Amino acid sequence: MTRTIPAEPLRWAGDRLIVLDQTQLPEQEVYLELTDPEAVARAIEQMQVRGAPLIGLTAAFGLVLAALNGPEHPDLFREALVRAADRLRRTRPTAVNLFRALDRMLALAGGLDPPGARAALLAEAERLLAEDRQATVRIARFGAGLLPAGATVLTHCNTGALATGGIGTALGVIYEGWARGKIRRVLVSETRPQLQGARLTAWELKKAGVPFVLITDSMAGYFFSRGEVDAVLVGADRIAASGDVANKVGTYGLAVLARHHGVPFYVAAPLSTVDLNTPSGADIPIEHRRPEEVLFVGSCRVAPEAVEVANPAFDVTPAELVTAIITDAGVLRPPYPESLALAVQKTDGTRQPTNGRR
Amino acid sequence: MTRTIPAEPLRWAGDRLIVLDQTQLPEQEVYLELTDPEAVARAIEQMQVRGAPLIGLTAAFGLVLAALNGPEHPDLFREALVRAADRLRRTRPTAVNLFRALDRMLALAGGLDPPGARAALLAEAERLLAEDRQATVRIARFGAGLLPAGATVLTHCNTGALATGGIGTALGVIYEGWARGKIRRVLVSETRPQLQGARLTAWELKKAGVPFVLITDSMAGYFFSRGEVDAVLVGADRIAASGDVANKVGTYGLAVLARHHGVPFYVAAPLSTVDLNTPSGADIPIEHRRPEEVLFVGSCRVAPEAVEVANPAFDVTPAELVTAIITDAGVLRPPYPESLALAVQKTDGTRQPTNGRR
Repeated sequence: MTRTIPAEPLRWAGDRLIVLDQTQLPEQEVYLELTDPEAVARAIEQMQVRGAPLIGLTAAFGLVLAALNGPEHPDLFREALVRAADRLRRTRPTAVNLFRALDRMLALAGGLDPPGARAALLAEAERLLAEDRQATVRIARFGAGLLPAGATVLTHCNTGALATGGIGTALGVIYEGWARGKIRRVLVSETRPQLQGARLTAWELKKAGVPFVLITDSMAGYFFSRGEVDAVLVGADRIAASGDVANKVGTYGLAVLARHHGVPFYVAAPLSTVDLNTPSGADIPIEHRRPEEVLFVGSCRVAPEAVEVANPAFDVTPAELVTAIITDAGVLRPPYPESLALAVQKTDGTRQPTNGRR
Repeated sequence: MTRTIPAEPLRWAGDRLIVLDQTQLPEQEVYLELTDPEAVARAIEQMQVRGAPLIGLTAAFGLVLAALNGPEHPDLFREALVRAADRLRRTRPTAVNLFRALDRMLALAGGLDPPGARAALLAEAERLLAEDRQATVRIARFGAGLLPAGATVLTHCNTGALATGGIGTALGVIYEGWARGKIRRVLVSETRPQLQGARLTAWELKKAGVPFVLITDSMAGYFFSRGEVDAVLVGADRIAASGDVANKVGTYGLAVLARHHGVPFYVAAPLSTVDLNTPSGADIPIEHRRPEEVLFVGSCRVAPEAVEVANPAFDVTPAELVTAIITDAGVLRPPYPESLALAVQKTDGTRQPTNGRR
C-alpha cells in the first residue's frame, strides 16, 4: 500500500515536539512547538491534539521532553518523570492509549541513569510512533476486505491521519477501500460539539480526493431510512474486555440505527485501544467537557445565556451492537471477551496497562 | 389552564402582519412588518417564521394581505388571490398546514365580491388562529395525561409558542406537564442545522421557567443508554394516512433510539397536520435546503470550502415507531389508518385538502 498520509499531526524535531493545532483547522494550518510536558498536557486538554492513538503518542513525547528538561540527579530525574506522567495522565480520562503509552515509557526508564533514560525514552516514543503507523496500515488492509463493492460508508468524528501516527483507523480503512475501488462515497457526520467530522475529516478526505457528503449528526437516520448506508465505520477511544466500545459521543446512536437497519457496524482501532483491565463499558470513565463547547461554534453563540448544558465527550456502544472490531491483529468477531483476549495475548500481552492509573 | 404564552410570533395589526424574526433569536427580538404576500412568502422561505402550524397561519394572513392589496375588479381580484396562494404554496413543501390553510381561505373567497371577500378572509384567518390556539390547549391537556410523574422528557426542534398560534404542540404538552408537577426536566436537542432547539426551545423554556438541559443532537443516545429518558415528545410537519410522520430531520433517529430502549415516542400535532390524501411517508415531499445552513453556524464556517453537503430538512418516522399521536381530538393509538381517519371524520372531514396543491 502506498497511501500518501494527508497530514502530519505530530513530528519530533530533535529537541521539541511540533504538533498541528487541530482546533484551527480547516481555516489555518498552524503548528505549535512544544518544549515541556506542561505545554504538551495543555495541547491535549484543549484538543489541539486529539484522537486516541495520537494522544498516546503525544504524551509519550511529552515524557521525552520531561526527560530532556529533567535534572541530572537520578532520584530527582525519576521524580520529575513521574510528576510529568501524572500531569499527562490527568489530561483526558477516556482514551486508554494515553495511559498505555505512559506506562510503557515509565517502565522503560526505571533502571536507567538520566542520560541513558533520555536516549531510551526517545527511542521508545519513536518506536510507539512507528508501531502505530504500521498498525494503521494493517487495520486499513483488514478493514478494506470487509467492504462491499460500491459502498456508501458512514463515519463519525475524525479517525484519520489527524487522529493517529499513520493513515488512521476507520478513515484508514476508507482510504484503502477507496484505493481498491470499493467506496462509492463517504457520509461524514459533522460531529458536534467540536465538529471533528466537518472540520477535520472533511479536510482530510478533500485532500485525499475521496468523494464525500457532509451531513449534520441528526441526518444519519434520514440516510439509513432510505437504504443509503452500507456500513458504519468508527474508531474507538477505549475497548473494554467485554467488547463494549467508548467512542466520540454520537457513536452509540449510529450503532442503534445500524442494528435497526441490519447494516454492519465496524469499529477500527489498534490493539493499544483495548483495555482488558476495564471489564465493561460501565467501567470506562466518560469525560465531561466545558459547556462552552456546546454553547458556541467558533465565536458564534448558539443558545441563550445562562442555560444548563450537558457535554459528555463519549458514549459507550455495547458489544452486541458491534459487527466486528478491525484491529492491527486482524478482524475480531464476537464473542469479544474471547477474541479480544486472544488477540492481545498473541501480540502484546505484557504491555496491557496494569497500574492504578486513574 | 392559565399558561402564559411565552412569545407572540405572529400578530395582525389591522392592515399588516407583525411577525417575530425567529432567525435572530435568541440574540434579538426583532419584529417584521409584512404588508404584501411576497414578503410573507419570503419570511416563510427564510424561516423567519417557522413551525408547521405557524406557517399555515402566516400564509393565511398572507392571503389577507393579497386581498387587501387586490384590485376591485372581481376577476382580477380572484386572479390576484390565486397568484398569491400559488406563491405562498411554493415556499415550503413538507408541512401540510400551509396547503390546508390556503385551501380553506381560497374556498371561502370563491363567491364573494372583493369587499366581502376581504372581510371574510380576515375573519377566516383569525378563526384559524383561534382554532390553532385552542387546539394547542387541548393537545397539552391530552398529552400531559400521558406523562409519568417526575419525567425526563426529550424533545427536538421547536414545537412551542414560536411554532404555533398558541402554547405549542409537543412543547405545549411539556408546559402543561410542568404545571401539573410531572416534569423533572427536559432534554433539549440543539437541532442542527438551524438550531431551533438551542435558539428557540431553550429561549422559550427559560422564559417559562421549566428546567432543561441543552444537548447536541449526537448526545441523545448517551442519555438513552443511561436510562435517563422517560419519553420523547416531538411535533410533526405532516402525518400521512398511514400514521407515518414527517418531522424535523433527526426525529427518526430519536424514534429508533426510543424503540431500542422501550421508551414511549409521542408525536403531538393538531389534526390540521394530518393529511389523509398522503397515503404514506414515502409520499411526503421532503424539502432540501441550502448547503450554507450546514456549512455555517451564524457567520461561523464549520467546514472547508467547496465540499458537498446534504441538507434534508425533514425525515420520516414510520407509524410502527410511534407510541401515540396526541391531537386536539384526543390521543390516537395504532392502528393509525383507522384512528386518524376516524378523528378527522369526526371533527373536520370536509376540511381535508383535496386539490392538486403540489
